Amino acid sequence: MSTKKPLILISNDDGITAPGILATVEVMKQFGDVVVVAPDSPQSGMGHAITINQPLRLVKNNQFGPDVESYHCSGTPADCVKLAVDKVMHRKPDLLISGVNHGSNASINVIYSGTMSAAMEGAIEGITSIGFSLTNFSWEADFSASKVYMHKVVAQVLAHGLPEGTLLSVNIPDVPEKEIKGLKVCRQARAKWVEEFDHREDPHGRDYYWLTGKFVNLDKGEDTDEWALSNNYVSVVPVQYDLTAHHAIQTINSWEF
Amino acid sequence: MSTKKPLILISNDDGITAPGILATVEVMKQFGDVVVVAPDSPQSGMGHAITINQPLRLVKNNQFGPDVESYHCSGTPADCVKLAVDKVMHRKPDLLISGVNHGSNASINVIYSGTMSAAMEGAIEGITSIGFSLTNFSWEADFSASKVYMHKVVAQVLAHGLPEGTLLSVNIPDVPEKEIKGLKVCRQARAKWVEEFDHREDPHGRDYYWLTGKFVNLDKGEDTDEWALSNNYVSVVPVQYDLTAHHAIQTINSWEF
Repeated sequence: MSTKKPLILISNDDGITAPGILATVEVMKQFGDVVVVAPDSPQSGMGHAITINQPLRLVKNNQFGPDVESYHCSGTPADCVKLAVDKVMHRKPDLLISGVNHGSNASINVIYSGTMSAAMEGAIEGITSIGFSLTNFSWEADFSASKVYMHKVVAQVLAHGLPEGTLLSVNIPDVPEKEIKGLKVCRQARAKWVEEFDHREDPHGRDYYWLTGKFVNLDKGEDTDEWALSNNYVSVVPVQYDLTAHHAIQTINSWEF
Repeated sequence: MSTKKPLILISNDDGITAPGILATVEVMKQFGDVVVVAPDSPQSGMGHAITINQPLRLVKNNQFGPDVESYHCSGTPADCVKLAVDKVMHRKPDLLISGVNHGSNASINVIYSGTMSAAMEGAIEGITSIGFSLTNFSWEADFSASKVYMHKVVAQVLAHGLPEGTLLSVNIPDVPEKEIKGLKVCRQARAKWVEEFDHREDPHGRDYYWLTGKFVNLDKGEDTDEWALSNNYVSVVPVQYDLTAHHAIQTINSWEF
């Protein structure tokens, strides 16, 4: 590390008051100057949504004490990052940390995750970006192991940088620190949610539906994030925003359009 | 093609009344039995958002005449597909078509696109899925060339299937059909939006911001979707929902956590 302190942007999808983002601020203050721009309300499941048809509010607050510049924003996690980069940060951040999310973002959840969309937006903007998630949805979750592993991962990322066009998705199993066996670099497990919408009738006789579902892991591989988490490892998945299925180009090129 | 008619699910992100989805219905009726489940209002920029904290409404309508089963839904494009698969379709669809979107979904736009999130949700559910987009935002856009090229692409996809874990993103340049030079199978161009938020003050003296931006293509490759579209080709990009940056795993494995 040079003598210049890294400038670190922090966001999340559970909102500015979530215990998970406080854990992140506490760790990241040890590495550099911290600026927080996070949603003013929970934005779970927002995927990579951006706000086109409404204006955004951005309000300075004192959520993390006098030495942390902090704002809440009416938009999505991706909006927060875009607005931070254009209007808040005095220079391009050296690092973006999203989370710690309350709940797993392993496997296919990366696609639905607001936490990972903030990190992905950072990566698209050319910022070294990491999303952290703890596999516990509760507001009372214990982030002490998450903080230890965040420190380990961030130290390595600051030392090495990340391969171009990639970001990291780090998931921490919800067990005490002494039960965590270490970190595993993984691929995203092949899995999906099988929907079971809960069909109800409102007091006026009109139908409505609640989204519920069952997570189904279709992947027996021991090199996946789901395997790592089930076996008490922290999973580290390098993620990319180029969605091209390069391997399929040749096949489709052989078709006679 | 066997004698059994394909069952085709259609959705979009511009909403059930958009001219683009009507174009899709007109083409797809030639291929099989069509069911439409589309948002009841525009959902552009919704990325892969899903609705967790509110219930969904699903209402049958007669938008496309008596021989097309059609519904509008209060949720996002991904919600529409999930709800269709669980509650509307009598069996798993053979094909899902999303669009035709009013506006390009080439390059990095695939990440922000509600149209592509419906197609991606279909692919995750194991349905052969294609998203179509015309590079013209207007409600008065001319979809006649889009219809011709949709027919060509769908015929090939029904004949060959798609490689496992992939879907297609097809963009059509906004020129008359006779000026289109053909189709090109492409990769997603490396590009980004550079944000320029428009900062205003409301009548009560409070700040607000409108998201605006400039699309910047950082990619000179002639094998990209942006190149194809600028040169009057229809671009066909195979897309995947496994976001793992497989090439980066070895590098990160060499770190000393």
